[in-house]
Amino acid sequence: MRVYDVIEAKKQDRELNEEEISFFVKKVADGSAADSQIAAFCMAVYFNGMTDEECFCLTRAMAESGTCAPRPKAEGVYADKHSTGGVSDSTTLVLVPVLAALGVKCAKYSGRGLAHTGGTLDKLESFPGLRVDLSPEEFERQVERVGGAVSGQTSETVPADKRMYAVRDVTATVDSIPLIASSVMSKKLASFADIILLDVKCGDGAFMKTAHEAEKLARLMVSIGSKAGRKTLAAVTDMGAPLGDNIGCNAEVNEVLQILRGEKENDLSELSLFHAAKILQAANGCSKEESIEAVHECVRSGAALKKLAEIVSAQGGDGRQVYGNFPLAKNVFCVEAKEEGWVDVSALALGRACAALGGGREREGEGVDHAVGILLKKRRGDHAEKGETLAEVYYNRDQGEGLALAESAFTVSDKKIRRRPLVRAFFGGERR
Amino acid sequence: MRVYDVIEAKKQDRELNEEEISFFVKKVADGSAADSQIAAFCMAVYFNGMTDEECFCLTRAMAESGTCAPRPKAEGVYADKHSTGGVSDSTTLVLVPVLAALGVKCAKYSGRGLAHTGGTLDKLESFPGLRVDLSPEEFERQVERVGGAVSGQTSETVPADKRMYAVRDVTATVDSIPLIASSVMSKKLASFADIILLDVKCGDGAFMKTAHEAEKLARLMVSIGSKAGRKTLAAVTDMGAPLGDNIGCNAEVNEVLQILRGEKENDLSELSLFHAAKILQAANGCSKEESIEAVHECVRSGAALKKLAEIVSAQGGDGRQVYGNFPLAKNVFCVEAKEEGWVDVSALALGRACAALGGGREREGEGVDHAVGILLKKRRGDHAEKGETLAEVYYNRDQGEGLALAESAFTVSDKKIRRRPLVRAFFGGERR
Repeated sequence: MRVYDVIEAKKQDRELNEEEISFFVKKVADGSAADSQIAAFCMAVYFNGMTDEECFCLTRAMAESGTCAPRPKAEGVYADKHSTGGVSDSTTLVLVPVLAALGVKCAKYSGRGLAHTGGTLDKLESFPGLRVDLSPEEFERQVERVGGAVSGQTSETVPADKRMYAVRDVTATVDSIPLIASSVMSKKLASFADIILLDVKCGDGAFMKTAHEAEKLARLMVSIGSKAGRKTLAAVTDMGAPLGDNIGCNAEVNEVLQILRGEKENDLSELSLFHAAKILQAANGCSKEESIEAVHECVRSGAALKKLAEIVSAQGGDGRQVYGNFPLAKNVFCVEAKEEGWVDVSALALGRACAALGGGREREGEGVDHAVGILLKKRRGDHAEKGETLAEVYYNRDQGEGLALAESAFTVSDKKIRRRPLVRAFFGGERR
Repeated sequence: MRVYDVIEAKKQDRELNEEEISFFVKKVADGSAADSQIAAFCMAVYFNGMTDEECFCLTRAMAESGTCAPRPKAEGVYADKHSTGGVSDSTTLVLVPVLAALGVKCAKYSGRGLAHTGGTLDKLESFPGLRVDLSPEEFERQVERVGGAVSGQTSETVPADKRMYAVRDVTATVDSIPLIASSVMSKKLASFADIILLDVKCGDGAFMKTAHEAEKLARLMVSIGSKAGRKTLAAVTDMGAPLGDNIGCNAEVNEVLQILRGEKENDLSELSLFHAAKILQAANGCSKEESIEAVHECVRSGAALKKLAEIVSAQGGDGRQVYGNFPLAKNVFCVEAKEEGWVDVSALALGRACAALGGGREREGEGVDHAVGILLKKRRGDHAEKGETLAEVYYNRDQGEGLALAESAFTVSDKKIRRRPLVRAFFGGERR
């Protein structure tokens, strides 16, 4: 068998068997498949797709291409959660301490922001000194000891995914549902989580623009996780408008702290606790109502905030900072309603605005300005008077594009805007 | 514009404009497009195809990516001929001296054999000392002085094609008609031929297995050549059975010499003179009958043989060898009819047999044994008695596969085999 033959078979739309897929992934991981061959394979998958079984084999082979995180010795249920990326989506920072405080161990691998989307690791680094590059052993120990850890995966974890993603990124082969599913799930299968909750965003601020595509991806990922023996849940949630009210690292951390201190209730708190309750239910077998009550009580009692402080301290930050607020940039620009009417807002445009102001990164490897922040004062469907503030934009410097983008993100019209349901679909929960 | 955008557009099946295609090819030639991006582009072309206009733009941009051969100062009509590759196809070695002797200057760029197909450059090297690596200047001077030259193109000639082909070769993207057409025609447009005759082979020994595919390729190449202002002709010819009676370098050269000495008439001589007459007609505007008579007379008179001697000498060989024969390998194996009946023979299997015995190459860069030869004693449609010799196989050593392949190439059955027409279709002849 040659790598060539696997590409040719996929090009001819023949279903690949496990042996062929494992062979291909092995050659990707050990470097003997050329970048050109990876690109040709991915483009053939873009056109011809993959069956659920092919995609499962691909995912498992990728997961096995590196060193898996060792499963902690302590008994208990381990959970992970993944969002496909959005704007003002800090659910992880609410959900992890809530679940950890409730005894569900959270082994959460996260990523960095790119383009208009924010990343959990960047937000965590708002806590000075906090490390997000835990070794697999440090990660395991922290989950065991504190009940929760949030870290980036090392490149050794899933080397086949790392190579494939780097190729896809420059060859217009990112937007293939089987390739997205296998990339996400390979990293989940390389970890030891028993319960995996996937939050597939859809809308203009998400990678999946339509609910139909998002549902396909969600179903496929649930299929992969279940075949691998993990309890896998997936929600399709709206990302037409930003999820929370704040965008930017410090601003989003402030919002999370407000929620955990019981000072704020909004879509972000609702969705974070919805997810937490779903995971709790899957972990404990308790009823839907019991789990919803438990997660709310965990916030009300302050147990979640305390747990976040523990996690921050364990990763090298100062846990006492959860009782304060992080500063925003020195300049403020107010986006005002140009006329009276009903507000709509684009998550994509606000995410881009934040990135353009330096609060996100255009390219991998760039730094971010944690103090850049956009605070929404009006949300989709709200009513505004002429001249009323729609958002405050905090920035250190504007290259000319950021503030204009922030302004363009809002429309005010005389047409009443219907809010979309936050959770559009929910799948899974069964092990194989 | 980025290379990424061009790939994305082709992936989305949008027709690329000239600017986009030129940009892409420039990035391929200057090395700034990654191999992975070339592969993704080629795979997208495989799936979505190209319009004739896109393919013309691609071809021209590729042709312009390197240094074109300078047009000789001498007046006259310059012709080139290209075969898509087959078994026992030595038409070039008959046609070039015939046309050169008749005053049509032949500037023939050729290639080497690969897999089951033979290559003109390898065959020419049967003449000891003959050089096939003429510089563009040497090539030009020889065409001007002798009337004909046959050489390989240097990698500087069409660097974009060289890179693209190297990528296609390992990514299962060779079999795309627009990519084949642009690869072949870019090399033709980079040369100075006024008349281009393309021989598109079809059948089991050819790259195009069906006449339908071969006709599509032929039409597309005629369209490209005509748009570039060249008089472009294309024939679709049969490659189910070997074209001539001999396979292998020395054996094929011997057959060519026999034809030019008037000692042999067969499908190879017929097709070579058919092509030569078509080019002559296009060059001189004479009638079909006149040109057929002229090419035959050119062989009868010995003028073509004399011209071949001149060409061989000009390229560093010994021209007197055209009056002799080249030796075959020391061992001979006879393929015999296992029963009485009608003979069929596979060009593909015989080409593979020759390569397996060392007379061809499995991989680029390997050497070939010029003395390995297969001489057909029976052709498709002939009748054979039981035990009669179907072919003689000359070889120095067999790794166990070559002779078996040669035997498997023949079938003898009680079903009469219909010979296929040699020329299945003919296209073109008009400049734009």
